[in-house]
Amino acid sequence: MNNKTKRTFASDNNSGVHPEIIEAISSVNQGHVLAYGDDPYTVRTKNLFKNLFGSETETFFTFLGTGANVLGLSFLLQPYQSVLCAASAHINEDECGAVERFTGSKLVPIPTTDGKLNPDMLQDYLHGMGFEHHAQPKVISISQPTELGTVYQIDEIKALSHFAHQNQMFLHMDGARIANAAVSLGVDFKAFTADSGVDVLSFGGTKNGLMYGEAILFFNSSLNRNDSLKYIRKQGMQLASKMRYISIQFETYLVKEIWRQNALNANKMAFLLAEKLSSFDSFKIQYLVEANGVFVQMPKTIAEKLQEHTFFYSWNETESIYRLMCSWDTQAEDIEQFIQLIKGITHSYNVE
Amino acid sequence: MNNKTKRTFASDNNSGVHPEIIEAISSVNQGHVLAYGDDPYTVRTKNLFKNLFGSETETFFTFLGTGANVLGLSFLLQPYQSVLCAASAHINEDECGAVERFTGSKLVPIPTTDGKLNPDMLQDYLHGMGFEHHAQPKVISISQPTELGTVYQIDEIKALSHFAHQNQMFLHMDGARIANAAVSLGVDFKAFTADSGVDVLSFGGTKNGLMYGEAILFFNSSLNRNDSLKYIRKQGMQLASKMRYISIQFETYLVKEIWRQNALNANKMAFLLAEKLSSFDSFKIQYLVEANGVFVQMPKTIAEKLQEHTFFYSWNETESIYRLMCSWDTQAEDIEQFIQLIKGITHSYNVE
Amino acid sequence: MNNKTKRTFASDNNSGVHPEIIEAISSVNQGHVLAYGDDPYTVRTKNLFKNLFGSETETFFTFLGTGANVLGLSFLLQPYQSVLCAASAHINEDECGAVERFTGSKLVPIPTTDGKLNPDMLQDYLHGMGFEHHAQPKVISISQPTELGTVYQIDEIKALSHFAHQNQMFLHMDGARIANAAVSLGVDFKAFTADSGVDVLSFGGTKNGLMYGEAILFFNSSLNRNDSLKYIRKQGMQLASKMRYISIQFETYLVKEIWRQNALNANKMAFLLAEKLSSFDSFKIQYLVEANGVFVQMPKTIAEKLQEHTFFYSWNETESIYRLMCSWDTQAEDIEQFIQLIKGITHSYNVE
Amino acid sequence: MNNKTKRTFASDNNSGVHPEIIEAISSVNQGHVLAYGDDPYTVRTKNLFKNLFGSETETFFTFLGTGANVLGLSFLLQPYQSVLCAASAHINEDECGAVERFTGSKLVPIPTTDGKLNPDMLQDYLHGMGFEHHAQPKVISISQPTELGTVYQIDEIKALSHFAHQNQMFLHMDGARIANAAVSLGVDFKAFTADSGVDVLSFGGTKNGLMYGEAILFFNSSLNRNDSLKYIRKQGMQLASKMRYISIQFETYLVKEIWRQNALNANKMAFLLAEKLSSFDSFKIQYLVEANGVFVQMPKTIAEKLQEHTFFYSWNETESIYRLMCSWDTQAEDIEQFIQLIKGITHSYNVE
Repeated sequence: MNNKTKRTFASDNNSGVHPEIIEAISSVNQGHVLAYGDDPYTVRTKNLFKNLFGSETETFFTFLGTGANVLGLSFLLQPYQSVLCAASAHINEDECGAVERFTGSKLVPIPTTDGKLNPDMLQDYLHGMGFEHHAQPKVISISQPTELGTVYQIDEIKALSHFAHQNQMFLHMDGARIANAAVSLGVDFKAFTADSGVDVLSFGGTKNGLMYGEAILFFNSSLNRNDSLKYIRKQGMQLASKMRYISIQFETYLVKEIWRQNALNANKMAFLLAEKLSSFDSFKIQYLVEANGVFVQMPKTIAEKLQEHTFFYSWNETESIYRLMCSWDTQAEDIEQFIQLIKGITHSYNVE
Repeated sequence: MNNKTKRTFASDNNSGVHPEIIEAISSVNQGHVLAYGDDPYTVRTKNLFKNLFGSETETFFTFLGTGANVLGLSFLLQPYQSVLCAASAHINEDECGAVERFTGSKLVPIPTTDGKLNPDMLQDYLHGMGFEHHAQPKVISISQPTELGTVYQIDEIKALSHFAHQNQMFLHMDGARIANAAVSLGVDFKAFTADSGVDVLSFGGTKNGLMYGEAILFFNSSLNRNDSLKYIRKQGMQLASKMRYISIQFETYLVKEIWRQNALNANKMAFLLAEKLSSFDSFKIQYLVEANGVFVQMPKTIAEKLQEHTFFYSWNETESIYRLMCSWDTQAEDIEQFIQLIKGITHSYNVE
Repeated sequence: MNNKTKRTFASDNNSGVHPEIIEAISSVNQGHVLAYGDDPYTVRTKNLFKNLFGSETETFFTFLGTGANVLGLSFLLQPYQSVLCAASAHINEDECGAVERFTGSKLVPIPTTDGKLNPDMLQDYLHGMGFEHHAQPKVISISQPTELGTVYQIDEIKALSHFAHQNQMFLHMDGARIANAAVSLGVDFKAFTADSGVDVLSFGGTKNGLMYGEAILFFNSSLNRNDSLKYIRKQGMQLASKMRYISIQFETYLVKEIWRQNALNANKMAFLLAEKLSSFDSFKIQYLVEANGVFVQMPKTIAEKLQEHTFFYSWNETESIYRLMCSWDTQAEDIEQFIQLIKGITHSYNVE
Repeated sequence: MNNKTKRTFASDNNSGVHPEIIEAISSVNQGHVLAYGDDPYTVRTKNLFKNLFGSETETFFTFLGTGANVLGLSFLLQPYQSVLCAASAHINEDECGAVERFTGSKLVPIPTTDGKLNPDMLQDYLHGMGFEHHAQPKVISISQPTELGTVYQIDEIKALSHFAHQNQMFLHMDGARIANAAVSLGVDFKAFTADSGVDVLSFGGTKNGLMYGEAILFFNSSLNRNDSLKYIRKQGMQLASKMRYISIQFETYLVKEIWRQNALNANKMAFLLAEKLSSFDSFKIQYLVEANGVFVQMPKTIAEKLQEHTFFYSWNETESIYRLMCSWDTQAEDIEQFIQLIKGITHSYNVE
């Protein structure tokens, strides 16, 4: 394996694009079609989402997950309303304040042990309702899977949507890695989204073999207020001119079930990695490994030596926890090499 | 020519991607590289921009032109400052208020006859300087070529940058079709941008054969304040994770001079189209045809019949002016067919 | 007259507060009442507005006119919508971009000869409706009186509201000097606001003898969406804690008809001033004098000498036009002194 | 005591204005002065702040505390930066998202036991520095006294400013009740603000006997970048036209030491109230009583009966904690009446 093709556990964004996606992009590269989504590929793919998620589903493509999350939330919120989310949520920790800047709304971060919210935790945050001094909670946003690699079960999602709707709120799902959740749960997408009461979903694929693009799916037909999302998308700098190249990616991804094969592999590799890492006494797996991420506590000295050979991110400096992500193209040999590296380091470290 | 490959004059965004760009994208699709711009392709392409525009040049890739314009302006502006631009400017007419929403700043639209600003027109807008009730003019933004298909000459740009800098303002250039301006002027990019006093440039390619992506170029090293653009880009939802697929497009576009061959063709076709249209007595070409757009006044009845066969946009309903855009892939035969269509219509129209 | 009590024509904001207003403030300064508008004075004054403007009227107090305009517009607008207004409008020229920053919306300035809009002028600005690239016109905002001292007649306002509603738009009125318009028209407030189809009104008094505070009046009951204005006001930094001191000002102003006596005087003085100024050959009154402002073209040398003695603002540097504002406390003797000053200057100027 | 003059423990905003303040307002109500802060009273009062806080001090008046906090923070922040504050901070809990909407920045709420931050608690929140995905911590904002009635000691403030400056951050202080802190600490204002490394202070008085108005004080001369605050204030809808009526309040408040006598009384009454409440077995005082607020846990049934007679706010529904605020005009008799009320209720409650 030469340097160019080296695969690491740094991020599922570091991997490339599934070859069939590239082929698909190439296949639509002929002639003129209307720009900005009025092309036949986009029309077709939006219908495909209706087939998969229900006929009420409205789909809007964006360039990236940040855009999908921010625009979906902007659609649901007035600036004086707030979003309840896990403190570890991507929208809270990793969007550089994009939600606040674009929507003007407040994010209310809620501490969790495993990245997951539940109605009991949320109850206390519903104070000050109707009190104009207090930003009004209007959206519960969850990540599926969470940033900690855990996966909400269907019942957990239903409990949250029930709680949200009882309180005149919406349930938003950040599905940047939604395929990994689907294969983890062993159900189709619809079961744990539209059928579980999710109102708006960011449907991602870039972390699972696509090149770029994300889809915002609206399941609640009462939400499609005056077509306003199309303006929000344009004003939000997310309207692609040559949209056919995004649509065809999603069509191919869904029709050829690339999402499934890729996510199955990534999850399988994560389980394998976690299993192998568990064999080291000084390593401790954090959280349930339910998708493609493995969070492991290890001695800092070992981590630093490892990082000299292969890059991965520190997740929690204080507690010496590191994040290892498996990708659609991760191979068992990559894990084996990594484990060998650890063995070499722990061995030399122990004898020093 | 089957329907799928039909080419129209509706928009240079309706054309596809140059085949060598697709090939280039495919060629970098191997193994893992760091995401978010720390990959070798992006590093290489940013250096390429330094070679072309001067060693002080800082480059930031975005997803699209809206993003490049908004982020570039946001970098230059405080929210209480304003942007002077032509009333016809894309940032004023065609971004759905994206500049105002993201920057919080005011756009001051200035009427022009041909889409071009000059210092004499701007002087009156510099009132209220230092007066806190008045949004403070800070940026002059021009489009090169303009939305009306005209091209600023180098001296005109220098006059504007001189005026801007004399008044402690910046000169911003929207170069969504910058290649068409370069071949029109017959000079390299640097001559009418960095060398003419432009401070920030949106360097576009999607309208000239790329798939997606745009570059913001900063020429003035005094502008690179604390690296803030990288945060503005992330918060502005324009940071691509798999950036290599944008960078390689620009590298290929520049190194193989695809920009030049594409723009040369588009401009040549526009001149041809304008020439042919001029032969119809009832058609009147508007503005100088200096790039790839042709604006023509024609009888509404003829336009409507034409639009039944081939789509193009009305530009000014009241004055019955229509916009015809040539693309990198427009062929002489497309023009010939269009002219024949007109002949058929005007003939039948005349005899009716 | 000592320096402290000197009255100028610089601004109707430079005058003090009507003594009965100060007395009224003092009269409510006893004991505790609920803050933030739940006090009996505020309840009473809101009912008074219902009596004057119709039972559907909802009233929200703000601190100042900028706040009233921005919040009223924010209530009516989504960020991707735009406001059509005269280029000379206060919201466009004199709010330092406050509307854009808070609402995220675009202002579309329309050139006028006298500060007044009419439907014919607006028609051309309704292009791009439904086109997501274009900020969607949603509000027509007029100033009554205009910044140029002219006053809309009732028929003119009805024509604008009719046009607005026909196009699914709203009519917003900036009434910073609304009392001056009312006495100019010789009708009650309701006739040219609620009864003429105005949807939202900024009702000001600070320029006519109040200390601070402005009222936003909503006339269209269909507008009172979910009480959202109360949150917008708080988030917009316009919710006064000790609101009784604002409410009592408006109550006194309205009940004792201080608005009328003050505005009658200011307008009368403006007419007198204009008449006297007309007697100078080199002075030319601009626009109709219909309220309390006089705009006069005069030789720059004379203006500058005058300004050495008494301050007033230049309105248009290029055309040497100056603005002279009369206040509720302007006296005939102030005008006489001003005229004598001019005589002295023009005399010495002529003989030099 | 008739109903009109009834004093409660609901809020220090429910009390009226100190009579000498009303007199002072009345005393400046003569003749014309320049609007928007160029009047002699404002100039004088700004100099007074220089005398009290140091010659580098720059003062800007706003209408209210929300405005002072939001504008002060806006001045210190870029939208991609964040503010670390106590979860209980007014800017986080009680401004309806005003900071986020106007600045576009993220607030990072930090749980505390007593409303106070310290460097140890902050350290963990300084992760992701230089990482563009993460909103960059730039300001530490503290309330003095806190929303929980506790007061930072000088050493605690110095520790925070030292920590802030070491990390290239700023220290912002919300001094809505700053007079209560000053008398609690027994030092002058300067000692625990400018001299303790605070960069920007919101200096409030409305809760302590003023009518309206708040001052933003900038202590760090390096902060006065291009006069930008004056534009931020105008765009932020906080520029009062008749500013003399704000300035004279502050001048009188400071020169006549009304701040001190009012705050001394309010604090004294709070101590008395806390002492009296402590005598009830079922009542438990929360937090140290260091200013004018008393937080007390009491049986919900008693609280509800009490609230039938005199209104006060529930602070924490779950834990049955209530907030009682003393004002500048609270009298020992008010406390005595309140205690008698409690006695009556607890007695009847116990015997039932």
